[in-house]
Amino acid sequence: MRATELRVLPVEGLPEIEEGDRLGELIAARMDLEQGDVVVVSQKVVSEAEGRVVQLSEVKPSKRAQELAAELGKDPAVVQLVLDESREVIRAERGVLICETRHGLVCANAGVDTSNVPVGSASLLPLDPDASARQIRAQLTGSSGKAVAVVVSDSFGRAWRLGQCEVAIGCAGLRPMDDWRGRADAGGGTLTATLIAIADEAAAAADLVRDKASGVPAAIVQGLERQVTEDDGPGAASLRRPREEDLFR
Amino acid sequence: MRATELRVLPVEGLPEIEEGDRLGELIAARMDLEQGDVVVVSQKVVSEAEGRVVQLSEVKPSKRAQELAAELGKDPAVVQLVLDESREVIRAERGVLICETRHGLVCANAGVDTSNVPVGSASLLPLDPDASARQIRAQLTGSSGKAVAVVVSDSFGRAWRLGQCEVAIGCAGLRPMDDWRGRADAGGGTLTATLIAIADEAAAAADLVRDKASGVPAAIVQGLERQVTEDDGPGAASLRRPREEDLFR
Repeated sequence: MRATELRVLPVEGLPEIEEGDRLGELIAARMDLEQGDVVVVSQKVVSEAEGRVVQLSEVKPSKRAQELAAELGKDPAVVQLVLDESREVIRAERGVLICETRHGLVCANAGVDTSNVPVGSASLLPLDPDASARQIRAQLTGSSGKAVAVVVSDSFGRAWRLGQCEVAIGCAGLRPMDDWRGRADAGGGTLTATLIAIADEAAAAADLVRDKASGVPAAIVQGLERQVTEDDGPGAASLRRPREEDLFR
Repeated sequence: MRATELRVLPVEGLPEIEEGDRLGELIAARMDLEQGDVVVVSQKVVSEAEGRVVQLSEVKPSKRAQELAAELGKDPAVVQLVLDESREVIRAERGVLICETRHGLVCANAGVDTSNVPVGSASLLPLDPDASARQIRAQLTGSSGKAVAVVVSDSFGRAWRLGQCEVAIGCAGLRPMDDWRGRADAGGGTLTATLIAIADEAAAAADLVRDKASGVPAAIVQGLERQVTEDDGPGAASLRRPREEDLFR
């Protein structure tokens, strides 16, 4: 397999996304998609299209949410949403809530986010981000006639590193990991641990053409054809580390 | 700031790297570099150029290394190197050694790696990856006359996700993080936590044109001019989460 060039193109000119909007069709109408393109869509617009934006004034914080909020210096309504979205609160200290979401994602605030949504509201993660990716993929393929892949991405912090990187919370039609284990390496040995998180790296690459305040909520990654599959595949769920391999719990 | 296109080009045709090779000059001789390019170089070749590859037969494992190796099913010589490279062993269980390196990086096996080096040897991380990046940058600028940035990258596993992503262990001339905190967002609010790990995302993007067995140890990322700085800047050291913010110790 020859190394090839990669291109990342921002999808510009998308309208404000509202509940019920068909993101795949909106993107296909603005971009000349090619076979094998990977379309990376930010969680925020997927949540907006799926009606996963809630008014904080309509949330009734429980006693536990109020206590946690006071402890952490957070808005009780936001904490209530975080608790509702969580299967488990892993850490609640120093102003930080690290949770396992109902999907099994481990991230800050269970993905509940008050940025880039109208003041007084919060966005929640899609109920099933892999299903969201499959749905957007079907719309893209239907509109463009091209077999493309979809990644739904969100910004996650890291345990030991500062800053956030974009990762894949959902994907369809993309091999989430490229497994090199068992293959020969350049030194005459055999690779034993090399398992590249392609979907996460594609999400990260796409983030580099976005602008956190610009409303560029999607990008096309070209040059990953070899990772694009005919079927929807296992999705980003396969990137979640099983609980029993988690060294922190 | 307008969103722009990103391109990632593999650097092909590099020779086998040996101790003393000047990587920046070798890369500049093969690529038409442009002002503002980000040159991502894999740790493996940086370590080779800096003589950081050791013969396992020359390592004398201590008693502790032998015991740990037996426990974890690892080579005692490799475990000795891991201990030598570590400031602290954070976890040693289930076949996994998570360490804080002498530089303060938290990663598996303190970065000691037996893949893609001759069988019977192991590569160690550069002694000071930010200094490596500065040195390669000076060579690239000297050879090409263009102001470029450099990232030295390595594959790290993640606490809660499977697979590895490439991250920046060193950088020079690149803003490691893009700080959006305090800026207005698209919903009329203010971003409070948005701090994008640009150097890590650039490393991840570069990884997508590499091939774990091909010997493509470098790539050029174009389209990040706005993150490229005149001075070398704080380096990737600024991406390490301070110990006191680490939720796991």
